[in-house]
Amino acid sequence: MKPYTEMTPEELTEELAALKAKYKKVQALGMRLDMSRGKPCQEQLDLSMRMMDVLDSSSDLTCEDGTDCRNYGQLNGIIEARELIGDMMENNPKDIIIYGNSSLNVMFDVISRAYTHGIMGNTPWCRLPEIKFLCPVPGYDRHFSITEYFGIKMIPVAMSESGPDMETVERMVSEDASIKGIWCVPKYSNPQGYSYSDETVRRFARLKPAAADFRIFWDNAYGMHHLYDDRQDYLIEILAECKRAGNPDLVYKFSSTSKITFPGSGIAAVATSPNNMDDLLNHLRHQTIGHDKVNQLRHVRFFGDIHGMVEHMRKHADIIRPKFEAVEEILETELGGLNIGTWTKPLGGYFIMFDTMPGCAKDVVSRAKKAGVVLTPAGATWPYGKDPNDSNIRIAPTFPSLADLCSAMEVFSLCVKISSIKKLLQDARS
Amino acid sequence: MKPYTEMTPEELTEELAALKAKYKKVQALGMRLDMSRGKPCQEQLDLSMRMMDVLDSSSDLTCEDGTDCRNYGQLNGIIEARELIGDMMENNPKDIIIYGNSSLNVMFDVISRAYTHGIMGNTPWCRLPEIKFLCPVPGYDRHFSITEYFGIKMIPVAMSESGPDMETVERMVSEDASIKGIWCVPKYSNPQGYSYSDETVRRFARLKPAAADFRIFWDNAYGMHHLYDDRQDYLIEILAECKRAGNPDLVYKFSSTSKITFPGSGIAAVATSPNNMDDLLNHLRHQTIGHDKVNQLRHVRFFGDIHGMVEHMRKHADIIRPKFEAVEEILETELGGLNIGTWTKPLGGYFIMFDTMPGCAKDVVSRAKKAGVVLTPAGATWPYGKDPNDSNIRIAPTFPSLADLCSAMEVFSLCVKISSIKKLLQDARS
Repeated sequence: MKPYTEMTPEELTEELAALKAKYKKVQALGMRLDMSRGKPCQEQLDLSMRMMDVLDSSSDLTCEDGTDCRNYGQLNGIIEARELIGDMMENNPKDIIIYGNSSLNVMFDVISRAYTHGIMGNTPWCRLPEIKFLCPVPGYDRHFSITEYFGIKMIPVAMSESGPDMETVERMVSEDASIKGIWCVPKYSNPQGYSYSDETVRRFARLKPAAADFRIFWDNAYGMHHLYDDRQDYLIEILAECKRAGNPDLVYKFSSTSKITFPGSGIAAVATSPNNMDDLLNHLRHQTIGHDKVNQLRHVRFFGDIHGMVEHMRKHADIIRPKFEAVEEILETELGGLNIGTWTKPLGGYFIMFDTMPGCAKDVVSRAKKAGVVLTPAGATWPYGKDPNDSNIRIAPTFPSLADLCSAMEVFSLCVKISSIKKLLQDARS
Repeated sequence: MKPYTEMTPEELTEELAALKAKYKKVQALGMRLDMSRGKPCQEQLDLSMRMMDVLDSSSDLTCEDGTDCRNYGQLNGIIEARELIGDMMENNPKDIIIYGNSSLNVMFDVISRAYTHGIMGNTPWCRLPEIKFLCPVPGYDRHFSITEYFGIKMIPVAMSESGPDMETVERMVSEDASIKGIWCVPKYSNPQGYSYSDETVRRFARLKPAAADFRIFWDNAYGMHHLYDDRQDYLIEILAECKRAGNPDLVYKFSSTSKITFPGSGIAAVATSPNNMDDLLNHLRHQTIGHDKVNQLRHVRFFGDIHGMVEHMRKHADIIRPKFEAVEEILETELGGLNIGTWTKPLGGYFIMFDTMPGCAKDVVSRAKKAGVVLTPAGATWPYGKDPNDSNIRIAPTFPSLADLCSAMEVFSLCVKISSIKKLLQDARS
């Protein structure tokens, strides 16, 4: 088929009529499919069921260092969990704090603490007239939700396949001391699936921020989430790079096992410099006596070591890779060559990013919803939910079954076509 | 033996020499006993080992309402956990949020949120010149540590066997709008083991605070922790009483299973009014996607229902009751009639409170430490660690074995005697 952008209004009108008839039929099916969030599917969850067996009433719940995991203590996490997560995050166990079940909660707490008490002796953010964060866009809505909640002004920075526009980042953080942070998902980014290039990471580690309390919020949520054995993105380890660059305190690095074992019942962690670590622990010791050590031990006993975790991640990949490939195949079949949308083809992570023609995203999402397919709300990938181009849609292929996913993507493609034609006809008229 | 307070300086000097000789012998034993914190002992932890068996890889981890506990969701906790904890806290499940493993963390978060965002639309505390909390004393050091961390001025209020001095509480909260809260451990209080009388609870529910955002921080940590079957304290349920008094939003009530199953691997909860609940959830939804539902389910399956939990608590009581009784017996044998100290005889909870003669507590604790017995630091039971009388010591009998506890209490009594005589001799000289 010829690109929609080259069709005459008559051709478009004819095509639209056919598509609308198809849409009506789809609506009549009464589908109910949810692709809105990056949730593992049931088969993925089943992969970790054996984790329920590794501890039972006959288990010795004592750590290597003699700590009884059942009792109070060990604010920074048990040593064997810090070792395992150290291997996962590529950091020294001594640079790691294991928290509870949610890395989002850790990020929230770090920002809350900066707001109430300040970072490493700097003025608490609540005492400053304005605080700003750089937000590579499109990005992760729950990051933006935290900064918005604290009244932090969010400044979008363009993303490319190699990461955020570093020239802008460098200029802005060096000029404006009210910029205190930047949200990063550096590997298999949410929603693009991009990984920061070596140059990007190197430039991050060499930032010269105007603010002494500027920090990079490095949410390496998908470090282990490769789709392929033979084609994988690599990311320079940021903490080591910051240390080499003489900027050891520049970064908080976050990760969790949420999408490795069970979301909500995993373990989350921070890796950071000794100075930042002291700062975090000074806060944490007022906040809690310690996190769930039994669950930390459960994770350690389940995986054994990092090789066990890598093998486990291959099983995840085997389940979700066909879903990613199906999405790409359907998009290619349905929309390829029509010149009405672009999409990413990630090698890992949880998302595919789709860009419609400007001004079509909201309409596509709303149209899909009316046909029973729930997508992440259009705009969610931008700060304040406002996508200036109204073009960005996050596709989350993992949760539905493969069959449901294919149906959903057919519906999605249909909606993209209809919205695009309506837009083209409207543009032609005006 | 005659009361020390009636002895002549010569008699005291003679007695002191004998005690010092005994102390030297004790020091030579090289004891190492820790009675500093309210930690369950190993036998108590063993009681919950079967909780490690209730979920395994063959378990259905689906909730009554169809929620898959292994995946994201259910911000306020799974319904069956809210029902169980509802029975434990004597509250409606719909008035309960289940959090993570630490009620202390929940209290910290509630105060942090009041500081950054304000309670129910009121001015955030960080924007006010001064915030004050009433602190019934002696009280719980970790409560005081949270308020101190947020720069909240703590005002001690006297405790009696029936609870805080309500006349003072009523007067102060009605006169001073900068008083925003009061820390309460209403049942088997830390460190006294007192329970608030019916009148105290009724008066709490009828407070007329000057501040619209004044809240009672009702930490009912020991609601289930009776030592005896036949002699138990009862506490009026505060939320219902507040509702009856037309003050539904006056209280945040906290509890957890930390000292029921495993400290650090239990579940914590808040019970509060619908208005406060909305307010908390508006915060929480930015902070996390949800807490550990698998652990919530584990607790539900382990206990079955509240009767199961009550039976479980009887087993705890059977283990720790002899320890409480041993402490009381040794104190009575060693110090009874000497007129140099008083102590409480609680029917539940985790602590016994000891009061030395004024000016002796620090010396007793330091002397005990030099003989190998670590006690909670003197002063810890007061805001800022400052006991104006230097007389209050918290005794935590649960963690050591009965034999160790007896040794430790002998040492403790010896130290009280030595310190007291030194004080009496000093007073006689001056």
